[in-house]
Amino acid sequence: MSDCIFCKIINGEIPSAKVFENEHVLAFLDISQVTKGHTLIIPKIHKENVFELTPEIAKNIFEVAPTIANALKAEFNPIGMNLVNNNGEHAGQSVFHFHLHLIPRYGKGDGFGAVWKNNQSEYTQDDYKKIAEAISKNIQ
Amino acid sequence: MSDCIFCKIINGEIPSAKVFENEHVLAFLDISQVTKGHTLIIPKIHKENVFELTPEIAKNIFEVAPTIANALKAEFNPIGMNLVNNNGEHAGQSVFHFHLHLIPRYGKGDGFGAVWKNNQSEYTQDDYKKIAEAISKNIQ
Repeated sequence: MSDCIFCKIINGEIPSAKVFENEHVLAFLDISQVTKGHTLIIPKIHKENVFELTPEIAKNIFEVAPTIANALKAEFNPIGMNLVNNNGEHAGQSVFHFHLHLIPRYGKGDGFGAVWKNNQSEYTQDDYKKIAEAISKNIQ
Repeated sequence: MSDCIFCKIINGEIPSAKVFENEHVLAFLDISQVTKGHTLIIPKIHKENVFELTPEIAKNIFEVAPTIANALKAEFNPIGMNLVNNNGEHAGQSVFHFHLHLIPRYGKGDGFGAVWKNNQSEYTQDDYKKIAEAISKNIQ
């Protein structure tokens, strides 16, 4: 897409610090390093978010994730790693070309953190069953 | 693995609210719903984290992510969605069998949130280049 910054990186119109590339995907350092080594994996074909990915494109993206994660681990010896993909402005997406963040972790205050509220007590086993059935009926 | 709660879910020893299943993966509601519809995708073969995944297993996991994401979208009409995978206790992992969270988003205070500190100003273009080269030399 002509006005997409990630498409311009793929096309070489904008420089990037390239970590990995194959026929289908490009991995490069996020210009906004939340922790050292923070890397993005993107498909070369323009897809806005996870909802637009075909199964084939999704496979191409995640196939290389373990390799890149292990390369980051080998280089920086982090104490953990988060993989994050944000879809939609309200979920934190700021560039509207699918990207998977690989965020090496070095301890509290390292730049990344997540809030997980446990709402388990709001649901009964019967609720869980009904919710799961409602979701799965949308899958052909 | 005999003492793994997710392996027991796969084996049917522990019940789960199943959203999707195929030969390679299982998707079910997280018992700790951080938002409504919060779903996990796990490989049927026991792998602790992203570092242990083979490319093939990684493909199997992410191949179904768009389908399940779209099923969640169709059911709950969220305003966004986060996909998250935590590796290591310090990154928020609590069950040590790889799992990818799909977290539909409904607005601020919905149960999930992330902190992204931008450390861009700490790095020069030359730093980025050196860091990327250091990582990529670990990839065969």
